[in-house]
This record gives sequence, C-alpha cells and structure tokens, in this order.
Amino acid sequence: MRRWNGWGEETTAMELPAAGREFLAEAIGPGMALADASLEAVLAKVPASRLAEHPLVIREAHDRLMHARGQSLADWLAMREGEFGLFPDGVAYPQSAEQIRELMRYAEAQDCLLIPYGGGTSVAGHINPPASDKPVLTVSLAHMNRLLELDEESLVATFGPGANGPQVESQLRARGYTLGHFPQSWELSTLGGWVASRSSGQQSLRYGRIEQLFAGGTLETFAGSLEIPTFPASSAGPDLRELVLGSEGRFGVISSVKVRISRLAEQESFYVVFLPSWERGLAAMRSLAQARVQLSMLRLSNAVETRTQLTLAGHPGQIAWLERYLNWRGAGEDKCMLTFGVTGSRAQNAASLKAARRMLKDFGGVFTGTLLGRKWEASRFRSPYLRETLWQAGYVVDTLETATDWSNVDNLLNRIESNLRGGLAAEGERVHVFTHLSHVYGEGSSIYTTYVFRPASSYAKTHERWRRLKESTSRVIVENRGTISHQHGVGKDHAPYLPTEKGELGMATLRTLAAHFDPAGRLNPGTLLQD
Amino acid sequence: MRRWNGWGEETTAMELPAAGREFLAEAIGPGMALADASLEAVLAKVPASRLAEHPLVIREAHDRLMHARGQSLADWLAMREGEFGLFPDGVAYPQSAEQIRELMRYAEAQDCLLIPYGGGTSVAGHINPPASDKPVLTVSLAHMNRLLELDEESLVATFGPGANGPQVESQLRARGYTLGHFPQSWELSTLGGWVASRSSGQQSLRYGRIEQLFAGGTLETFAGSLEIPTFPASSAGPDLRELVLGSEGRFGVISSVKVRISRLAEQESFYVVFLPSWERGLAAMRSLAQARVQLSMLRLSNAVETRTQLTLAGHPGQIAWLERYLNWRGAGEDKCMLTFGVTGSRAQNAASLKAARRMLKDFGGVFTGTLLGRKWEASRFRSPYLRETLWQAGYVVDTLETATDWSNVDNLLNRIESNLRGGLAAEGERVHVFTHLSHVYGEGSSIYTTYVFRPASSYAKTHERWRRLKESTSRVIVENRGTISHQHGVGKDHAPYLPTEKGELGMATLRTLAAHFDPAGRLNPGTLLQD
Repeated sequence: MRRWNGWGEETTAMELPAAGREFLAEAIGPGMALADASLEAVLAKVPASRLAEHPLVIREAHDRLMHARGQSLADWLAMREGEFGLFPDGVAYPQSAEQIRELMRYAEAQDCLLIPYGGGTSVAGHINPPASDKPVLTVSLAHMNRLLELDEESLVATFGPGANGPQVESQLRARGYTLGHFPQSWELSTLGGWVASRSSGQQSLRYGRIEQLFAGGTLETFAGSLEIPTFPASSAGPDLRELVLGSEGRFGVISSVKVRISRLAEQESFYVVFLPSWERGLAAMRSLAQARVQLSMLRLSNAVETRTQLTLAGHPGQIAWLERYLNWRGAGEDKCMLTFGVTGSRAQNAASLKAARRMLKDFGGVFTGTLLGRKWEASRFRSPYLRETLWQAGYVVDTLETATDWSNVDNLLNRIESNLRGGLAAEGERVHVFTHLSHVYGEGSSIYTTYVFRPASSYAKTHERWRRLKESTSRVIVENRGTISHQHGVGKDHAPYLPTEKGELGMATLRTLAAHFDPAGRLNPGTLLQD
Repeated sequence: MRRWNGWGEETTAMELPAAGREFLAEAIGPGMALADASLEAVLAKVPASRLAEHPLVIREAHDRLMHARGQSLADWLAMREGEFGLFPDGVAYPQSAEQIRELMRYAEAQDCLLIPYGGGTSVAGHINPPASDKPVLTVSLAHMNRLLELDEESLVATFGPGANGPQVESQLRARGYTLGHFPQSWELSTLGGWVASRSSGQQSLRYGRIEQLFAGGTLETFAGSLEIPTFPASSAGPDLRELVLGSEGRFGVISSVKVRISRLAEQESFYVVFLPSWERGLAAMRSLAQARVQLSMLRLSNAVETRTQLTLAGHPGQIAWLERYLNWRGAGEDKCMLTFGVTGSRAQNAASLKAARRMLKDFGGVFTGTLLGRKWEASRFRSPYLRETLWQAGYVVDTLETATDWSNVDNLLNRIESNLRGGLAAEGERVHVFTHLSHVYGEGSSIYTTYVFRPASSYAKTHERWRRLKESTSRVIVENRGTISHQHGVGKDHAPYLPTEKGELGMATLRTLAAHFDPAGRLNPGTLLQD
C-alpha cells in the first residue's frame, strides 16, 4: 500500500548501514527523532466537505487526506506531524475526457476551485489546496492510465494522462517499445504530470526531456478543448504544445497525451569512471556533451557526494579495496564518480563506449567497468525512499536543483553549496551538502544538490530551519543566472522566484494566458503564478 | 548587386543545359516567355509617402521598392510584371535596440503599421505591406548584423537579429565555430527571420531546427521589452522562447538573438546512394531516422525528382554511364537518389558511415561514394536561382512543403503530387511535379514538392494558374494531417489554412497573445493571423 505520510510503497525500505550512521554523526552530529502522528489522528481532523453531492465526487476523509499533500519537505513535515492544514473538499477520479468536462461544469456550478492531480509527487507544492473561501475539488487522473492508440510506423503512442511510469513502460514494453522517460519519481509520477511540469528523465541524453517526447494531445480548459495534432515538426506559428508544457494545471486539465516512443534498444549498459578532481570531472562532462558522444546518461558526483555514496552503500570492506585501487591509479581524496550509460545497437554502443573511454582517459579518468553501473541501475528509483530511512535515523534530507550555462556551473554550484552549508550556523547546526550534475547539454548542465540536517526540538522549528535554507538558496539560484527549476517545476514553493527569470512582461504574458483559458481563476490558484 | 525583381545576386546565374530544355518541353510543352518590366518603370509608380519625416526613416522610392515584396511566386510575378501594388511608406535601418524602440514610439505617434524585415526571403508573404488607411513603416534589421558576445565555454553566441547566413557563419568560423543552420535561403535570410518563422536548415539532423538553436534574446514589443535569459533547459513554466519562435513579427521586433553554436567539426562528407524504388527509399529513410544513426543530413528524391535532377545536371555522357552502372546494380527506371552527410570527429563519422551503408544495403541501396555528394554540397544554395533560369526559358517554378507522421508520408505526398499534376488539366496544361524528403525525425518527415508549369498569355492569367495550384494543394495538405508549413512559416499566403491545425481555441490563443503584446494591432497585420 502507498504510504499516507511519505514516499512510495510501505513495503519498500532502504537500510542505513552502520558506517553511514557514523559518517553522518561525524558530519553533522547524532540524529534527533521527532514523533510521527497516526493516520487515525489525522483522519479525525478532516473537516466536513463544502461541496455538494455529485456521482463523480468522493467526499470521504481518506481520499481527501491522500490528495492533500505532495512530497516537498514542507509536505513531509506536515504529514509526519499530522498537521495537514488544508484538505480538498472532494476528490474525483474521471474515466474520460467527457467526465473531466462534466467536472469542470460542476466546478462552475459550485463556484469551486479545481486542482488537476497526477501522481502527487510534486516537491514544489503543485497540488496543495490553497486557503480559500471557495471549496476545492481535486481531480485525480489515476483512472485514465491506458495506452489508447499506437502508431508503430510513426512511433507515436496515445495514453490517458494518469498513466504512471510503470503503467507507461509495461504497456509499451509488451509491444517492444519504450518511452525512455525515467525521472526519479517514475514509480508514482504520471505522464500528464510530466507534461504539466516539464519533467526530465535520467536518460534525457538519449530520449530527450518530456518537451521532446510530448507530440500532442488534448487540454480541457474553461474556454474549450485545445486539441493539438501531431507533426514531426512545424513552422506554422507558435507551437501550442509549449503552452501545455509547464502549465502546471493553470490553463486546463490534460485529458490525453501523445508521445514519441522508441523501439527497445538492442543493448544497454552503465559504467562508472572516477575522475581525480572536480575540475577534471567538470571538464570531462562538458567535453562529452559538446562532442555529441552518443551516451544515454551521464552523471558526475562531486567529491563529497562520491564519499557519501560510497559510505552509504555499505560493504565497507569492498569499498576500502576500491579506494586503495583508485588511490593507486591517481583518483584519491578528491575523486569524483562519473556514471555513464550507452543505449542502442551493439555497434553504436561499442563506438560510443570507445569514444567516451578515450575522452575520459584524457581527463585522468579511472574506468571501473559495469559493476558500480549496475548498482546505479538497480537503485535508480530508490533515492526518494532515503528520506524515510534518514528520518528514522533522526535526520532530515531535501534536494534543490537548477540548471545554468557551462561558464556558470562551477560558480553557481559553489554558491548554492556554501549557502546551504552555513545556513544553520546561527543555531550552531551543521548541514551536510553534496551535489551532482545529471542532465547535460551543449550549453550547460543541471545542478542537483542534496542537503541533510538535523530536526530541531519541534516540527515548527524544524520547518523553520528548512524554510530558511530553501528560501535563501532559491534566491542565490535566481540571482546567479540559474533557473528556479530544471526538472521539478514551479508549484507554489518556487513561484516567488519566477519573476526574476521571466521578467515583468513575461509574467504578464503568463497571467494573460491563464485569464484566457480560465477567466474565473478556478484552476490551481497559487501554483506557477502567485496571483 | 542584389536583384530587384528576383532571387539573389545579379552576377550569379545557373545554366539550363540543352537536355534539360528538351526534357521540360517533352514533359509539359515548349517554354512561353512573358516580358519583364524595367526598374525605372516601377520606380515611377511608387506613390508619395504618407509618413512624416524622421531621421531614421527613409522615404526614397528605391528603398521602398526593395522592401515591398518577398520571394513567393506571387511576389515574383508581380515584380516581373512591374505591378508591385503596395509599397511601404518608409524604410528604417535601426542600429540598436534603442533605435528600434524609438521607431516604435514614432509608429505610435504616426499611427502607422510596422513590418519587421530580415532578409526579405519569405515565400509566404510575410513582409508585404497590407492594404491599409494607415501608413506602413518597414523596419529592416540589416544593419544589426554583428556578433556581440561569445561564451566559448557554453557555446552561446549573441548576434544582432539582421545577421544573414554568411555574416553569421563568417564571424563564427573566424573563431572556430559554426551555427550549422543552412536553409536554402541562407545567402540572404537572417537569424531574426529564422527565429520569427521557425526555419530549418539542411543539416537539421545534426544541429537541430532553429527552435533548438535559439537560446534566448530580446523582443521589443508595444507592451515593453521581453528579455529571455539563456538556460540549457528549464522546467520553470511555459518557455517564453516558444512565443518568439514563429511570431512572424506579430508580437514584436527581435532586437538580439542568442544561439547555441558548435565547434567546427573535424570532418564532413556527403554521399549518394541510389535506392531501387520509392518504397525502399522511404523505408530506408525511416529506419535511419528511427535508429538514431548520427547523420548530419538525409535527403531522398522520388523517381521523378531523381530523373529531373540527373537531366538538369548536364553532362549527359557521364549520366548515361552512371545510369548503366545503376541499372546493372538493380537501381533502374524507378531509382531514387538518397543523399546523406556525416559531420563530426573522424571516428564518429567512420562509425556513422558504416552503420548507414549497412542499413542502406539492406534496402537494396547502391552506394556511389562522394562525387555526387560533393556536387550537392557545391550547389546547396543554388536552387533558388533556378527560378530565374527557368523563367528565361519560359517556365514557372514553385515549391510547396509540409511535414507529417511517417504513417502518412506516402499518402500525403501522393495526394499533393496528383493534385498539382492535374491542377491545370482544365486548360489542357500539364504540370511537372517532383518531391523530396529532406528533414527527417523519429516521428515523420518533411515533404518538399517542386512544380513547374508554363506561364499563360498574361501575368494575370499566370497568377491565376498559380493561385489555383497553391490554394487547392494547401487545402489538400491541411485536410490530410499535414502542417501548412514545415519550414517556410505562415505569412499571409498560409494564414487561411492555419485554423485547421491550430483549432478554434488555438487561434483565439494566438489572437490573445497578439493583443497582449500589440494592443493597437500595428505589427505586421494579416501575417500569421488573418484578423
């Protein structure tokens, strides 16, 4: 069963090895536990619904609780404390575009707000009900998860918007295809959610971001249905797909999604190389991306992340052996782990592997083969479970991400890390901070930073610690040529920082579009645009 | 000097070999010439300007004549007849964003219309002044053509919007870089024009369309300046670049363009392979595109285009020898010429060439090496000059293009060709029609059709022949899942067909955006949107 107060399946758990616990204790001090609330206690707090009866609208406390919060750290703390605050007044699970339109008519009749809901995996407050005099209806697309059409010649598949990662891939794989979109949230997040929030998957280097995969579909708006036909490319004016991508439920509800798929590749492997320093690793990443070496994924951990990952992996004996070997080969204390993948025909992969190895060798890279690559592959969707593991051990973990041009990657990364590292110094608390680059482009890279700190003596004070770290670092990002998000979207948490990158006229343009599609302002208010 | 009544440089001319003349005479009858007007006669028809004096605004007849028409066939006939019809009332050549804004203030004060002008190479009526009570000011960006900034780490270059193909490439090549954007109009068309019309270059398979190259920049609008910063990728809401791309001068004037550039490749070669039939050629194109073989260009001519090109190439002795060889190897009467390019490091190119040759062999392809590929390369920007050559020989030539998903390419191509081929049957005239696919994607392909017919006894009747062919075929395109343009844009000529693909709500959205950026409706009215 899905956890009501955290990430993923209840039956899935990650171990924190003893060495990991010691490592964190040394880095930031021993863990401090806060008590979790019970489900019963929270259910008792769900207030009466303000919505009128409708055959499609469920007003049960449990459904409303399960759709009240996403997976941001603020959501996590609220869920663990049992202080959800706001709940939707009802949840609907439409099964067709017509039922979505029916629910939109109901929303007009009830004068209520409407929140489109995919997998509920937002880490930026996309689906949280706002405080409002109006009732709130959450529309979950979970029941619209089927593969509806497959054009095997054009490699275009049509899905219901609520298909989550496993549902997308299992329906395609049965026929020999893949979408190739694997965000870390893949187990729970949905196709419609990926489109609405412009998500990016771990193998974007081969398959592209969701922007490249989204070929067309339908958006149900309060001004009518926007049907976007598929073309391989077009110069016929502005591309309407781009208004659906990143619309975050403000312009409409996505009722069908057409995506560009691929035949399953003949072969796929992942390899790990250690670079002797961050400078060399960064230069290698840029070279590989700009030389268009045909890789399917590329990820570079900085020295602290490398050390943290090797420690948390357990198996201290094996790791010690690996480190002696790496040390002997010149990748010592400052070593950075680089993981790369090749996906394609055997011939393509052999050529790409050769090119990558040659280039990495020039930067002092020590190749270790596929063993660690297979480990990465096996645990590629496990990181979100780590929050639960660390919480049990008395730590809080969150991540922050952005993207910037290559000439600014190192500068921005250092500013983010140092802002987080010293962010709780006033309270005498340390923050453990590490970073990787995992989406690279000719122009630049994403920057993905993880930070671990200790809870304070209460939930309120812990939330306050997080808020201080998150807000000040978000400012650091947008004031230093970073985008407020490379892959998580804007939601409510990032909305205050959006104007810095979109500008005054850009923000006015987005508001004009929202008013065009949703004149009464019912759709997901507070998300993307603060007003 | 640039031709005032046709394409390109006056000093550049293409030969029509005797065999080509005979070929056309047999296909559609002997050529029929119409008399050209003189420049003096047209200059005498330029009316008095309706615009008030301004230091930046030139009201001379010659400048106004040179900016009155693009390069559509309708423009061509009007220019040859000397019946331009409408002229702008003035032309300005701003040298800075501030001067553009100054001209926009002047346009408000004068209550005039404003047409942004790049290279004047539109084949869809983008820059033609509309009939209006208001005076018309054409703003040529020709003097804003410099490389302004170069970030060599991020491979981002900032240009003035008026830099044409040779200006872009020469400034980049001097430093070891290339943009890699080579539309057929490259000699004259401009970076700002490419962005405004969503253009695509011959090597889009490697470098991407202009959508992938355009990284940011500035749009001057009547609602203020829209500054778009560069990010390698972002999930921060809808991407504002996409509103500039394809805006066709309706939302604002582009005052600076940031583009993603590449280091000059180590090596580049083009090869020609003949496929025994259209079916095999089409299947080979789709396979190469979907298998992600790293090619930089890929073009397949159908059998009639292949025959036409081999005949028009001259050298009948060499061609006869080639045809005997191909026939012997199994590529006979129905053979289709496929040209492909590899661009990259020597190792990449060797691997790609090997993969492409192996795949093409499976489809019965006969490899002929680089000789014909070099010929393609040498004449890659020459096709537009062919209109002049054929006109002198008494023929009219035009092209039509679209893109559609692979499952529909053959169907749509056949409908386009048969509609054109029989389009003048009522007058007892034949039309010579041939097609190539030159931009391929996993999902589908562009379709580029050339048609040659004879002028009628007058310009008016010749225009009427063209109008009938163009309008009926445009309908065929949009009614059969094709986009009204893959690479030429909408302009005024394609505007009536846009609603079929954008839908009612899509069109309303574009009108809302136009009104947002340009409340008084001064910018390029009639282009993109009919109202």
